[in-house]
Amino acid sequence: MLIVKKFGGSSVADKERIFNVAERCIEDYRKGHDVIVVLSAMGKTTDQLIAKAEDINPLAPKREMDMLLATGEQVSVALMAMAMNSLGVPAVSLNAFQVQMHTTSTYSNSRFKRIDSERIRHELDNRRIVIITGFQGINKYDDYTTLGRGGSDTTAVALAAALHADACEIYTDVEGVYTADPRVVPNARKMKEISYDEMLELASLGAKVLHNRSVEMAKKYGVQLVVRSSLNRAPGTVVKEAVKMERMLVSGVAVDKNTARISVIGLTDEPGIAFKLFSLIAKSKINVDMILQSVGRDGTKDISFTIPRGDVREALDILEDNKNRITAQKIECEENIAKVSVVGAGMASNPGVAAKMFEALYNVGINIKMISTSEIRVSVIVDSKDADKAMQAAHDSFGLED
Amino acid sequence: MLIVKKFGGSSVADKERIFNVAERCIEDYRKGHDVIVVLSAMGKTTDQLIAKAEDINPLAPKREMDMLLATGEQVSVALMAMAMNSLGVPAVSLNAFQVQMHTTSTYSNSRFKRIDSERIRHELDNRRIVIITGFQGINKYDDYTTLGRGGSDTTAVALAAALHADACEIYTDVEGVYTADPRVVPNARKMKEISYDEMLELASLGAKVLHNRSVEMAKKYGVQLVVRSSLNRAPGTVVKEAVKMERMLVSGVAVDKNTARISVIGLTDEPGIAFKLFSLIAKSKINVDMILQSVGRDGTKDISFTIPRGDVREALDILEDNKNRITAQKIECEENIAKVSVVGAGMASNPGVAAKMFEALYNVGINIKMISTSEIRVSVIVDSKDADKAMQAAHDSFGLED
Repeated sequence: MLIVKKFGGSSVADKERIFNVAERCIEDYRKGHDVIVVLSAMGKTTDQLIAKAEDINPLAPKREMDMLLATGEQVSVALMAMAMNSLGVPAVSLNAFQVQMHTTSTYSNSRFKRIDSERIRHELDNRRIVIITGFQGINKYDDYTTLGRGGSDTTAVALAAALHADACEIYTDVEGVYTADPRVVPNARKMKEISYDEMLELASLGAKVLHNRSVEMAKKYGVQLVVRSSLNRAPGTVVKEAVKMERMLVSGVAVDKNTARISVIGLTDEPGIAFKLFSLIAKSKINVDMILQSVGRDGTKDISFTIPRGDVREALDILEDNKNRITAQKIECEENIAKVSVVGAGMASNPGVAAKMFEALYNVGINIKMISTSEIRVSVIVDSKDADKAMQAAHDSFGLED
Repeated sequence: MLIVKKFGGSSVADKERIFNVAERCIEDYRKGHDVIVVLSAMGKTTDQLIAKAEDINPLAPKREMDMLLATGEQVSVALMAMAMNSLGVPAVSLNAFQVQMHTTSTYSNSRFKRIDSERIRHELDNRRIVIITGFQGINKYDDYTTLGRGGSDTTAVALAAALHADACEIYTDVEGVYTADPRVVPNARKMKEISYDEMLELASLGAKVLHNRSVEMAKKYGVQLVVRSSLNRAPGTVVKEAVKMERMLVSGVAVDKNTARISVIGLTDEPGIAFKLFSLIAKSKINVDMILQSVGRDGTKDISFTIPRGDVREALDILEDNKNRITAQKIECEENIAKVSVVGAGMASNPGVAAKMFEALYNVGINIKMISTSEIRVSVIVDSKDADKAMQAAHDSFGLED
């Protein structure tokens, strides 16, 4: 059996944890399995590297940022290989150049195009545990790229798909996927199974358990995932296509605090303005989430949209530079907001979910700033300070508790 | 003009120093020159990485050690590129994979075989400053290798040779090559010029200004080096073939504290024993420096030799494992020793230098444990505690003071 195991930064944060991971991997190896391990950078390494870069150049070229950040995972994999070797198991670390993990050319938010399996197969054939840097790739210019936050999950899934692995296990510091963040909602319940689609909504909504692109890729290639804890042996949550579990109306609640709203005010009410505005934003590879258009005064209209908080400065710069072109009178930004969402495959056929959620928030006195819905999700934007309370209220109102 | 500039770890230890280096490189760039910058890891980074590795596995595979250490230079070059970009100058960082710096397959002490110039030329043609990781290469297995301590000097010289650079400047935290370490010998004098051969003896003797392999390579390819300070504009020392300077009897004094003596006692006095012993050591790529053979008791002989202190454990393990094969009765090791040497091209035709040095040490009461000489060098092993005093005494007796 070929098993891909991915461990996040907190799972390899220090010597003790590194050996804990090494031992878990060796267990599978000793059973005769082929083992591929994907690692993130240790603990807060990536944040520290970003801080160093920002100290030197707050507008550092993304190409150089990726060159810098790629070192984080390389440290992890080398130390892990040393740990396994000290336990008497042959192990070898590989980075994106060595594996040849080809991505699109975009820096800092790249996507996998092709992963060569030759070097990995060669090492596995020699009965070595193969430890691979997550998060990073190389592009056609032979430069490092990175996959964005949480990209190591995607690396694991991409490797599982490329090598037709029999299992893909995502180890994290929680025991699985919960109906809500258990640190905020104490009575949240761990799910046994969840569908790709539900997981996708939860991941992209900030549930932080799995990177959404990794779930997309798992769905596309039919890679069944298990999300489980690196700290204990609890069974975890299986993410897969067909879910047998009881069809709850709502399966989980998530909050995304890394969001900001930009409002472009006083746009001329003529065709093509929204197109111009969002094609400018898209050119910078900034992901726009919710979009709200409202009629303003004097034949003008306002457009509000949400983006990741880290992209605010870049988006504002672009909009200010093109203020005349998009006919904007004023550009505003609000960063103290959060998105609270309820997700559930059972929701598709039940129109009452949105109303029930709004009622729950009304009952605890929370104001809703924006609303967005999909087939299996209802999201609202609220003040940051209300986010946790809103999540608890929604969780309670849909009876998700343990 | 194509200029290669190499800066050591202390020259890029913090933000201020990084910008200092960036500005010095940009000066040359703005004059219209093509500029290649070679960097070491920042400050104590390499030592910290080694400590991390030793904490995990004191006998870590060298292949993984090189994978780990290679990250140090990559951080330096990425941050430097960011600094230069923030100063408005296009710059790009490249690692050993991107340049394709091919080395022998040996880990941790590799040698350059071939450096591709294509990518570098491409970046220079686009008028970018090219910032390259020192110290590292890749081998035929597509694995990282490192060149050993001070290997970044070799990287700079190898690049200067491969790209036919017009100048190769080695920046360090001292102003040039001195007649002795000015931190130990206060009246040491900076040399204007020094020959490759003298520099080779000084470098390999622990003068720490230039890596000896870099000087060998500079000599081989006729690359003229300038050693100068990254902190000020003092002219530095030129290292080249033909030296016009006055032929001093002795040009410099050096001390190497990173040495240890191993004594193999009671060897059978028969042919081939020394061969067996040193071929065992050579197989582990341990550099043996001085060798002393003496007749022991009962038809046996003793062999003593010095090696870098970091290789002691490995050497002892090998010898203990092969004790019977080499017919050794006892193996001893002494680590509290240092090598003090005087070097000078003028020495070759003057046999009195050794005697003069021994007299100087005798006058200050220092005991000599081993002696070794070459055409242009006399070296002695003394107790570590006597090393600085010995260097000062030799320096004084040959009249090297300022």
